[in-house]
Order: sequence, then structure tokens, then C-alpha cells
Amino acid sequence: MALSGMACSIEVLFTPAEFRALRDRDLKHTVCVVFDVLRATSTFVTALANSAAAIIPVAEISEALVLRQQRPDVLLAGERDGLRIGAALTGGVEFDLGNSPREFTSAKVAGKTIVSTTTNGTRALRACAGAQHVWVGSFLNLSATADALAHCRPEHLLIICAGTGESAALEDVLAAGALCESLASRSHAIGTHDSAEIARRVFRQAQADLPGAVRHARNARCLLAHAELRADVEFCLQRDRFALVAASDADGTIRKEAVAGRHEPAAGNQ
Amino acid sequence: MALSGMACSIEVLFTPAEFRALRDRDLKHTVCVVFDVLRATSTFVTALANSAAAIIPVAEISEALVLRQQRPDVLLAGERDGLRIGAALTGGVEFDLGNSPREFTSAKVAGKTIVSTTTNGTRALRACAGAQHVWVGSFLNLSATADALAHCRPEHLLIICAGTGESAALEDVLAAGALCESLASRSHAIGTHDSAEIARRVFRQAQADLPGAVRHARNARCLLAHAELRADVEFCLQRDRFALVAASDADGTIRKEAVAGRHEPAAGNQ
Repeated sequence: MALSGMACSIEVLFTPAEFRALRDRDLKHTVCVVFDVLRATSTFVTALANSAAAIIPVAEISEALVLRQQRPDVLLAGERDGLRIGAALTGGVEFDLGNSPREFTSAKVAGKTIVSTTTNGTRALRACAGAQHVWVGSFLNLSATADALAHCRPEHLLIICAGTGESAALEDVLAAGALCESLASRSHAIGTHDSAEIARRVFRQAQADLPGAVRHARNARCLLAHAELRADVEFCLQRDRFALVAASDADGTIRKEAVAGRHEPAAGNQ
Repeated sequence: MALSGMACSIEVLFTPAEFRALRDRDLKHTVCVVFDVLRATSTFVTALANSAAAIIPVAEISEALVLRQQRPDVLLAGERDGLRIGAALTGGVEFDLGNSPREFTSAKVAGKTIVSTTTNGTRALRACAGAQHVWVGSFLNLSATADALAHCRPEHLLIICAGTGESAALEDVLAAGALCESLASRSHAIGTHDSAEIARRVFRQAQADLPGAVRHARNARCLLAHAELRADVEFCLQRDRFALVAASDADGTIRKEAVAGRHEPAAGNQ
């Protein structure tokens, strides 16, 4: 199970402490893929698959409120403690959506720009500023993202696990490992960073029962404890539900990536 | 394979970026175990098993030279690019030992204090300043360390992977996972940090062929490429060769820990 081939190197960052250090690195020839599987990046990918025009991730509620004042047509999305952000936290503004990907149906999001508050996801995406491409990864669009990487063949692939608080999140490392494994099976170049080997081995160990493994992750335990959020865990572990690549622009806005000669997103509404 | 039981929590730090952030944490009720499997902590444990009086780890050659001036009886140990540090790097001082654990025989080290230069190992140990205990881990003394933890039952166990440069090292994460697994099999308390679950799953995936897994690690590849260092990899992966606990004092000096009612170190010379 060596990671073989050398056309590009693959590195995985497990925690915010690691991705914060990216500000000192030149990422010009690097493609970054960010995973915040439970639930930010899964939600963004679902929204784009359901024809949202764009996602603007922000770290703070106050940033979301400023954007709404500038552009009254945007939808506001985000949760605190699992619940959609309400008027009590915002001085009167009710958010339109929480952070469950199952809420982001075509009926609600088609054609809309969504401002979404998410702490670790936003920090991880911002840490990649200056990269050749910044792609938003999830189990939901894993093969499409792997296809795009195989096509783009970057010098360096950096897979960033957004984590929880300051710590590593199991589900993000599993997704990182799944991406490494998927690239290997395409005979795409795989480098020799130990971090990629670690992620790949965690995924191989867990892949026969991914829901069983993720059930022990801190984020999953929180979601499984809420009756109305429980189904999000299973939803976010669906492999390749959507055949789309989601890219973060230089200004941090996330849109569906137009990939020449590639299949279009599957299944609109979920 | 849930990590079950709650008497203490277990957390694993994978990289220097993470353990540098420890300076902001209160570690009073935390026991730290540091792994730098290839080769610093394996070498320290071997030296103590072979009756060295103490190890003083330092990050820089210049620190080692200052200590030698203060205490001419110390042995100097360390390598650059796999070779023992010679007069060209020190302005005339030949180091007594390199960094291969196989050099640290009783004949050479019994009764001696050894000043050892190692970058990541020293940084990792220093990051634990203020902890309840700081123990030096390796595959060579894994069960003895796990026994001591089961006896001590700290509120919080922090397993620190020294890594390579700024990155995670596979062999350190495997040792961290082996320690988590060993504690679980003793019904010792295991907490619920995802990082411990990640390390444990990597170990479980690799344990049937640990040398085969470690062969892909960056440090192992460097050692395996040197004819005279190749055997270090196999040496450092030996499980439980020495039944000793190695503890770092408040001033950073590492000594054999006296553990009441416990067996004595096995096998002197190797």
C-alpha cells in the first residue's frame, strides 16, 4: 500500500494549528482541497448541486449581517448549538437557513447567493489564499474532485482538514484518506508525505463501515444526539451523490467550477 | 472499536504546529508522553536501559558544547545527515556518539550523563513544561509506559508525536496508536478525542506488518538508504524490549523513573 508515483506530492494538514502556518508558504503551484465534512463543506456542495449561485463563507455572525445590509437578496445560513441563528443573536434578523445540508433544497436555494457562517470551514478556506485552486471537498463530490485533480495534475496537492475547534476531526481525516485512495486508484501521482499515508490508512481501516467509524467522532456524536439533525451524518457520508467541483475564488466566494468536457451535476433536489 | 471508558481523556498531537500551542494550556493535571521513534526517544530509552545516568536533550550543537564546557564528564551525542557530529561542525570537538540506539551500549554509556542534540524531540519535550509528568515513549518501552499510565491514572493524557520538520511522522503516529490500543486492552480509561481514534485506527491498520508500513515513512526511507543505519529501523520497532519508564524532570533532564512495585529494566546490553 505504498503511495507510489511522483508527478505530484500530496500532503494532509490535520488541524487548524497546521493550516494557520500556511500564511508563510507560497501556494502558487498548489491545489488545496478543504474538507469540513460535518457539515460546512457538505452543505456548500449540496447547495451548489441544487443550483445556488454562490456561497460566501464567513466566520462571524456580524460579517453575515454586514453582507445582508449590502446585498438584501442574499440568504443567511448558519447555526449555533445546532439551531438556526435567530433574532436573539442578531438584534432582530432571522437567518433563512441553518447548517443542515438537507435544508438546502432547490426550492430554497436555486439562483440564490448564500452567506454562510462557519468557523473552522471559513478559517480553513481563508488559509488557502494564494493557491492555484481552492476546492471544496466532501464525500458527496469526492470522485468529481478526484477527477478534476487527475485532470489538473498540480505540482502539489494540499488536503486541509478543517477540524473541530483546535483539534483534528475524524470525519475530515477519513475524507482526506478517501481522496488519497481515490487518486491512487486512478494511477494519479501520489507523493510521499507521511500525512497522506496516515490519512489513507485511517480510511482503509474504516471504509468497510464508515458510518460505524464516524459515529465515534465528536461532531457526529453531537449531531446524533439531536433528533432533527441525526440524519445529517448519514447524508454527509454519501459517496459521490453530486458530480460537481466547488471552487473558492480569490475573494472567497464559492461557485460551481466549470470543468471542460466533464459530466454535469447529478440529482438536483435531494 | 469505540474508545470507551471515561476516567481520563486521551488526546494525540500530530505535529509541531500543534505542540507549540501547548504554551497556552495548563498541563498541571496532564501526563505527556512524547514519541520521536526514529530515533531520539528510542535512543534515550536504550541509553537508560543500558544504565546511562541521565540524558540532557538539546536542540542545538552550540548548547551541547556549552554543557560540555561546564561538565567535561558528559558524553556528547548527535548526528547531522545520519553521521556523528565531527570536529568540522563544532570548531574541534568530536562527539562521542551519533544518534543510533545501537551505539548506546552499556560499555559506552553506563553511569554517564549524555547530552544529545535532537531538534524535534527536544522541541516536543520542552513543549510539555509544566505537565504532571513528561514521559519518553518508544516501541521499546511501550508496555512499561502503558503500565505506568494505568497506575498513575491521569485526568488527561496527551500523546505528542515529535514529527519530522513541521510535518507528521507516520512512525510516531503508529506508536501513539499502539499506546492507545494498549491502554484500551488494559481497560484503562480512554477518552473520546478524535485524534486518539485516528492514531488507534492507523495502528490497527498497520499492526500486522509494522515494518512494512514504516518502510514508507520519510524518516525510515532516509535510514534505510544508509547501509550503516538501516538496522536502526528494525531496532526501533522492537516492542517492549525494555521494561522501563523514562521521565523528563522539570529542568528537562531524562532519567529512569522509579516506579514502586514494578519490574526492573530487562536486557542491559543489546
